Amino acid sequence: MKSYILQIETKYTKGLVNNIAGVLFTHNVEIVNNHAFVEKENEVFFRRTEILGDIDEVKLLYDLYITLSEKAKIILSEKRKKDIVVLCTKEHHCLGDLLIKNYFNDFNANIKAVISNYEKLQPLVEKFDIPYHYITHKNKTREEHDKQIYDTLIPYNPEYIILAKYMRILSPFFIDKFPNRIVNIHHSFLPAFIGANPYKQAYDRGVKLIGATAHFITEELDEGPIIAQDIIKVDHKKTPADLAHEGKELEKVLLSRALELACEDRIFVTGNKTIVFE
Amino acid sequence: MKSYILQIETKYTKGLVNNIAGVLFTHNVEIVNNHAFVEKENEVFFRRTEILGDIDEVKLLYDLYITLSEKAKIILSEKRKKDIVVLCTKEHHCLGDLLIKNYFNDFNANIKAVISNYEKLQPLVEKFDIPYHYITHKNKTREEHDKQIYDTLIPYNPEYIILAKYMRILSPFFIDKFPNRIVNIHHSFLPAFIGANPYKQAYDRGVKLIGATAHFITEELDEGPIIAQDIIKVDHKKTPADLAHEGKELEKVLLSRALELACEDRIFVTGNKTIVFE
Amino acid sequence: MKSYILQIETKYTKGLVNNIAGVLFTHNVEIVNNHAFVEKENEVFFRRTEILGDIDEVKLLYDLYITLSEKAKIILSEKRKKDIVVLCTKEHHCLGDLLIKNYFNDFNANIKAVISNYEKLQPLVEKFDIPYHYITHKNKTREEHDKQIYDTLIPYNPEYIILAKYMRILSPFFIDKFPNRIVNIHHSFLPAFIGANPYKQAYDRGVKLIGATAHFITEELDEGPIIAQDIIKVDHKKTPADLAHEGKELEKVLLSRALELACEDRIFVTGNKTIVFE
Amino acid sequence: MKSYILQIETKYTKGLVNNIAGVLFTHNVEIVNNHAFVEKENEVFFRRTEILGDIDEVKLLYDLYITLSEKAKIILSEKRKKDIVVLCTKEHHCLGDLLIKNYFNDFNANIKAVISNYEKLQPLVEKFDIPYHYITHKNKTREEHDKQIYDTLIPYNPEYIILAKYMRILSPFFIDKFPNRIVNIHHSFLPAFIGANPYKQAYDRGVKLIGATAHFITEELDEGPIIAQDIIKVDHKKTPADLAHEGKELEKVLLSRALELACEDRIFVTGNKTIVFE
Repeated sequence: MKSYILQIETKYTKGLVNNIAGVLFTHNVEIVNNHAFVEKENEVFFRRTEILGDIDEVKLLYDLYITLSEKAKIILSEKRKKDIVVLCTKEHHCLGDLLIKNYFNDFNANIKAVISNYEKLQPLVEKFDIPYHYITHKNKTREEHDKQIYDTLIPYNPEYIILAKYMRILSPFFIDKFPNRIVNIHHSFLPAFIGANPYKQAYDRGVKLIGATAHFITEELDEGPIIAQDIIKVDHKKTPADLAHEGKELEKVLLSRALELACEDRIFVTGNKTIVFE
Repeated sequence: MKSYILQIETKYTKGLVNNIAGVLFTHNVEIVNNHAFVEKENEVFFRRTEILGDIDEVKLLYDLYITLSEKAKIILSEKRKKDIVVLCTKEHHCLGDLLIKNYFNDFNANIKAVISNYEKLQPLVEKFDIPYHYITHKNKTREEHDKQIYDTLIPYNPEYIILAKYMRILSPFFIDKFPNRIVNIHHSFLPAFIGANPYKQAYDRGVKLIGATAHFITEELDEGPIIAQDIIKVDHKKTPADLAHEGKELEKVLLSRALELACEDRIFVTGNKTIVFE
Repeated sequence: MKSYILQIETKYTKGLVNNIAGVLFTHNVEIVNNHAFVEKENEVFFRRTEILGDIDEVKLLYDLYITLSEKAKIILSEKRKKDIVVLCTKEHHCLGDLLIKNYFNDFNANIKAVISNYEKLQPLVEKFDIPYHYITHKNKTREEHDKQIYDTLIPYNPEYIILAKYMRILSPFFIDKFPNRIVNIHHSFLPAFIGANPYKQAYDRGVKLIGATAHFITEELDEGPIIAQDIIKVDHKKTPADLAHEGKELEKVLLSRALELACEDRIFVTGNKTIVFE
Repeated sequence: MKSYILQIETKYTKGLVNNIAGVLFTHNVEIVNNHAFVEKENEVFFRRTEILGDIDEVKLLYDLYITLSEKAKIILSEKRKKDIVVLCTKEHHCLGDLLIKNYFNDFNANIKAVISNYEKLQPLVEKFDIPYHYITHKNKTREEHDKQIYDTLIPYNPEYIILAKYMRILSPFFIDKFPNRIVNIHHSFLPAFIGANPYKQAYDRGVKLIGATAHFITEELDEGPIIAQDIIKVDHKKTPADLAHEGKELEKVLLSRALELACEDRIFVTGNKTIVFE
């Protein structure tokens, strides 16, 4: 018996749940757990089901497509670790957290490589016997630099690319290659404080809470679908440096959480929003 | 023996704390509690001290001015309830909360009157024997309407004006009359979702948390100094109506908290920020 | 077309979801939303479904019982307001919040009456034209007092009894009459600080957070199934009075939330736990 | 010019603040920041002041003792990193976080050594070139085991001992050696769920939030002064394993925060409570 994740996204029609249940029943699968959601505006049905069984994968997919529609998106994948590549710059807090978790198999991901535009984090990464690619952006156009990163990471065949405080904007060509597969952590509660130096922006605005947001990267800066957000309360005594120091814990937790959700196939993207089945 | 709040805002100089302590000591006051903060950027010192004693008020102020500087802002006020006027439109949740608290003396404020551009909340307010002034905005320019509100509230001599979901923008002339004395509740975590319909904006952006912000009104819409903020977590299942429903509890708590802080003289404004001594 | 809530609690068996879907399909109902949960330990299946349709109620129930088992618990109820009776003592914050919400139809409940062992809150309740029954506990045994309360509330035929800071322990006979139908708010994060004066207990223990817990009443004091909990952070500066003051906002929000969940049939009780379908 | 932390704990008397200010003024120190608190019950005054200056340390202490009382507790310490030793068992999440932070100088502490009753975490610790002492508890009484740990850590002369998920109860003799210097992380919101397996206890009780508590160790199990606490919300879907998994992030953040607070001399202990100057 194997464990699978079945993901379905299709036009909602009456009897749909019944029909899916019927197919699963005839294939004799055990439903370990199940989440579903109907987006009323566009009448789209989303479902994530963990199943267990000796499944004829091709037949099950065929029966589901016949029952639903050939236009439905149906993904049946064995439950397994996802390969990821991490991009970073000079900050270590998110990367360090991911390395520790990777080393102890705390999540459903394998870090295949780390790529950075600085050398600084190489000694840390190499402690964990993970390849570190230092690719400077100096004397390169953005496209040249991103092309080099792209060529470096492609051999690792990552399912997700994790931006662990990678402080550069990625080129459109790069983003287009990985739709809803690049996870970023932004250090504010988006949509507030888009762009550079959000803690300084937060300080200047005099907010009473700071936040962080994990989201998929799209071509619009800091505008991609939000996966997870949280905040901590602050007061007037906090300097921008204090805010940055305290915010790091939040960034760490949220990026790691988003990675987990992605690697467990718990996220659907609809328009510019996510549906997260926790 | 009487209770006083002493508020000081002055240029920071070495020995300042010592000098203030010296003056208070010679006046034989008992310090009930004390908060101070030095804003390093502009080297400004802020202090709020609750004191108890048989005080020669004029003499104490004189001694403080002599010791500090005639340019210092020093306010010595007896601890007592502040008179307020509440403005509202059609939503009852914040107003209802304030009326209950007012009726049972839960906070340091007296609601002298409620003014609204609709009749809807009159029956509620009159249950509590508080004057309700219905001033429609129909067939009036903004300035005419605000002038009428102004003329209506001035006889109540309010120390603070509380916008309990008052859904109109106030005229600059009105705002200028009450610098840092108009408290508003905005139903988002500012600076995100400024302006109309923030829950719909939040829904459309697909955020994973919604918030509310209590702030002083300035001429820039939703840009005034923030007093208090908080959030609640949400997910994809929430409709804009759900967000509005759940957000109301937050709005209620934060507006009431901001009112308490204001009426207890716990808020200093510096630039566009607040220092809140809780 | 009418709106219904269908609640099912039954032994989990393979094909169950399929079978229920089949019955609903043949009755041509529209599923507005649906929540289900399988408790793995005891293999019990819980489901809450909002449905819309011209339903032959008796036939639908019959078909469900035939399909599931005569041992299943199946409740099909029209979506409508629930009648409640509120018990209180001297504190007004929860009661005031409920009265305001009741007056404006903010929730799915009708407050039919308020019963208290003190006269204090009568003027407030009567503002809202709700009957107030003052039933002193003086010179009565607990059973006598509770019998009198029981006799008073029974004519109102309440579906839920809400203890809005009712500061007395109820007799076993009373509790037995209303299994999982008496909702209490306890002013601590249970199971910490059971019993009297939890804010004082919290202060003495030096905790850095205080909380509140809404739960169903069972015969074990403060040990009933928990519906909702939350906390706020505090520090050493807070006195027991401060903790009580700040905690009131939490109590208010949580009791009201629990009431909403109960009156929308979102709570299942299994053993001493709740399953809450939000 | 050097940076110092001045800590004062003394009987509160009128004029006290004035007197301390006077001494600091004559020593020409610059006050970088200052926190004070008067515990009203016992009339004890606590103060933490960061100062900067060319200070005659002995003379300053002398003057403070003369001005206050020889019974006052006065500590003047240069601001510097504190040496710590970490004890752990088999869980890596807190330890990993501390090792990363130590490696990058994220906090005011130096990890001098790690001691564990298992070998499991040795490879991780040695990546960071920190001594790892494996001291099994097998075939030893608790006192024998703790004596061996004690003998091992004493040469490192730690100012604080950090229990990073050290899953054994320490002997009274050991605890007595380090009053308010052993920091533990307990995986519940104390005082709920004292002792073993708090996540299972939480699951069994059906709570809607789980927490963690950083506290100083005293002889009463899980009863020592609380430094920091926080919670996350959970629901009926979470298994004990889920609770443990999600709780780990909280444990990590809180232990690290408590360590920071301790190493920056921000914690005073009074009775069984802490005063934390953040």
